[in-house]
Amino acid sequence: MTFDPLDWAAFAAVGRSMVDDMAGHLATLRERPAWQPVPAEVREALRQGLPREGQGLETCYEEFRRLVLPYTNGNIHPRFWGWVQGAGDPHAMLAALLGAGLNPMSAGFQQSAPLVEERVIAWMVELMGFPADASGVLSSSGTMANLLGLAVARHARAGFDVREQGLCGQPPLTLYCSVEAHGWARRSAEMLGIGNRHLRRIPVDALFRMDLNELRAEIRADRASGFQPFCVIGTAGTVNTGAIDPLEEMAELCAGEGLWFHVDGAFGALARWSENLAPLVRGIERADSLAFDLHKWGSLPFTCGCTLTRHAEEHRAAFALERPYMAPTERGVLAGGVPFADLGIDLTRGFESLKAWLCFKTHGFNAQAAMIEQNVRQAQRLAALVEASPELELMAPVSLNVVCFRYAAADAGGLDALNQEILLRLQESGRAVISSTLIRGRFSLRAAHVNHRSTDADFDELVRAVIEIGKDLT
Amino acid sequence: MTFDPLDWAAFAAVGRSMVDDMAGHLATLRERPAWQPVPAEVREALRQGLPREGQGLETCYEEFRRLVLPYTNGNIHPRFWGWVQGAGDPHAMLAALLGAGLNPMSAGFQQSAPLVEERVIAWMVELMGFPADASGVLSSSGTMANLLGLAVARHARAGFDVREQGLCGQPPLTLYCSVEAHGWARRSAEMLGIGNRHLRRIPVDALFRMDLNELRAEIRADRASGFQPFCVIGTAGTVNTGAIDPLEEMAELCAGEGLWFHVDGAFGALARWSENLAPLVRGIERADSLAFDLHKWGSLPFTCGCTLTRHAEEHRAAFALERPYMAPTERGVLAGGVPFADLGIDLTRGFESLKAWLCFKTHGFNAQAAMIEQNVRQAQRLAALVEASPELELMAPVSLNVVCFRYAAADAGGLDALNQEILLRLQESGRAVISSTLIRGRFSLRAAHVNHRSTDADFDELVRAVIEIGKDLT
Repeated sequence: MTFDPLDWAAFAAVGRSMVDDMAGHLATLRERPAWQPVPAEVREALRQGLPREGQGLETCYEEFRRLVLPYTNGNIHPRFWGWVQGAGDPHAMLAALLGAGLNPMSAGFQQSAPLVEERVIAWMVELMGFPADASGVLSSSGTMANLLGLAVARHARAGFDVREQGLCGQPPLTLYCSVEAHGWARRSAEMLGIGNRHLRRIPVDALFRMDLNELRAEIRADRASGFQPFCVIGTAGTVNTGAIDPLEEMAELCAGEGLWFHVDGAFGALARWSENLAPLVRGIERADSLAFDLHKWGSLPFTCGCTLTRHAEEHRAAFALERPYMAPTERGVLAGGVPFADLGIDLTRGFESLKAWLCFKTHGFNAQAAMIEQNVRQAQRLAALVEASPELELMAPVSLNVVCFRYAAADAGGLDALNQEILLRLQESGRAVISSTLIRGRFSLRAAHVNHRSTDADFDELVRAVIEIGKDLT
Repeated sequence: MTFDPLDWAAFAAVGRSMVDDMAGHLATLRERPAWQPVPAEVREALRQGLPREGQGLETCYEEFRRLVLPYTNGNIHPRFWGWVQGAGDPHAMLAALLGAGLNPMSAGFQQSAPLVEERVIAWMVELMGFPADASGVLSSSGTMANLLGLAVARHARAGFDVREQGLCGQPPLTLYCSVEAHGWARRSAEMLGIGNRHLRRIPVDALFRMDLNELRAEIRADRASGFQPFCVIGTAGTVNTGAIDPLEEMAELCAGEGLWFHVDGAFGALARWSENLAPLVRGIERADSLAFDLHKWGSLPFTCGCTLTRHAEEHRAAFALERPYMAPTERGVLAGGVPFADLGIDLTRGFESLKAWLCFKTHGFNAQAAMIEQNVRQAQRLAALVEASPELELMAPVSLNVVCFRYAAADAGGLDALNQEILLRLQESGRAVISSTLIRGRFSLRAAHVNHRSTDADFDELVRAVIEIGKDLT
């Protein structure tokens, strides 16, 4: 027996229908609601017991179309700006087919897959302004891409053999991010054994950027108290407002203090792909390590995180292992070893790089840069619409592509609850999906825009919908 | 502008060709070499500068077919038993298309993707004999799936608030695996800040299973010296020989000692899917946490690791974070929150569960179990062929699906080098791909079998080829 189809022609026919169906679905997204709740009967239909007997491909595909396809959180829709989730490039859907069919284990080996990943990394190194001999690796998420950067920092700057000795019994390492940094920093500090209490949160200025005087004072105080500072985290594009820390000054400060400078550029780093926007993230090219996601502003489907570091030897030294059953040889399948397994946590790795390779070659990086500019222009335009609407209030400066605002034509005391209800009714209406956050403690609507399908008219519809729902409620 | 195709019909036509081409490629694998070296001109052709201008889908696909497709490490071929790498189920190739096209961010939200992952986890819980309220999550690799189990163990058993305080300044935690355990254990101990030197390697018996008397003595000695044992790692299917630790006795020992029992069942755990083979891994259902890979013996394409733990609350407590911009609501897109982001490291997560859902429903778990039985029977048959061949020597007992042997019809002093050369010539011949390892310090050929495409005749060809190459060389 085998899991190959008995009838390849029939199998291919189903596959061709799937291509047609998905293309048709993606081509007509605008005709459907941006989001709809999952009905109780769909939940119930999905709650199936263990399938001991096979049900066949056609039956399963029919269930997919009926129960799975219609009910997503909306991120592929033109009017989704809920969270920083790429809308997905249809060309990458085809790359996913090719990659899963070919199915190379992409840690290394003498094969094409690692050569493709090497190429993607080389392009990223060039686009981010890193030195040509910088090192990089793709991984499973933005959190993971950032964690890998911190793991290299911990190895390079702990001051003892952290891999061999571990942290128990060692002097406490400390690291620094702004109060606006993303939750990945806490998770990474916890996973790496550093501890949440040793992640210092530095206050921000009026533009939500890290206050460097506070940073300097905190580092000084920590050193005086016997802590061992080893790393400063800058953010290029905060999750709440898209703010960008003063990266150039931070790089300078870190160089002076002997600290590792890590930048979380999950989406914001891609501003550097555009000549016009690159000045916003000036200094990012001086980071010791940089993490960003190609599944956010790169429009690839989930997931494709990327870590770069200018310290290629430290990168490898932080992870490299000997594997008797995978000892590199001069010839044969293992010629070249498994280099990517020594640049991150995973040994087994999929062919995610093919999605990047195929899409970026298909469109070209000039088009990628133009898309990022389009999104930033649309975010600024949305902010202008908000400011021009007497019912609405802009809640934070728009640094990049995140617009925080709220409906304000009502009694100030009830605005948090009112906007929460506006948010839910907007989502339930299917007209658009946005999200919310707290801006200096105040509930705010939030549009985070990395969507390649959005037009100016889509944002007009958002503003219209929020005002209509707000008026209905007051 | 948008990254959607201008002409959806032309786009779909390319996609349909891809389905036909890939189906044709997979249907005819046996006609091609199991592996071939990457020619210098292919390497050179792949070394392309930054593509500023777009090259279009057809051009890029043509390059894929010419430069990428022919040069894989061979794991999809019927005569690949090099490493524990699933051959890939073609049905999952179609699931990858659907998943990447639909592109849901699968941390949670009110949408279908987390309901599909919940289902896959529920099936795994049932198949592994865990309690119905056990918790589980899919992740990027076997190393990651195991690391997540250890992270829960560390949180649950450190004896202090490890997330908040970190490990610096704390008494040294120790954990235990056999000398045959996989490199993930070292990597995880390093990443989690525990340190390689606190990972104790316990000797094995003649069947390469952990020696529990040695384990007891080591735990006692560590406690007497001020170390803090917290976890014992059992392996169901070691990488070198497929050996299975005495899981039932280990579960008993851990319960008595108050230690967390983690099982690495990367491929071996799936023996439990077969009623006939389940006794081999008896005791696995008593693990506090269990990791295994659906991209190995489950035949899914890379990657789909899985972690289960019977301690659902501890699982969540080890990872849960508050996210102001993702605060769960009663209604709307965020109803239900992002539960899977609180069960592992990644916040952004892809729709890997769809591959499992579609393939396992299509074939049914009875077929999955039959495939595992077929592979074990074929491994035993290979061992019998080796023992029946005067030129060959079996290097280790065959516990499951890994067969270690070597060509031995030559001067004993040169056997290591001779078998290394046999291995490389075999790979270069394209007749089959196997690998090597060290068995008690002696170089050994190694066939690790999780391949759904292999027939008995394929193993006959392997034995024939090894003997022919060995004779040619001596």
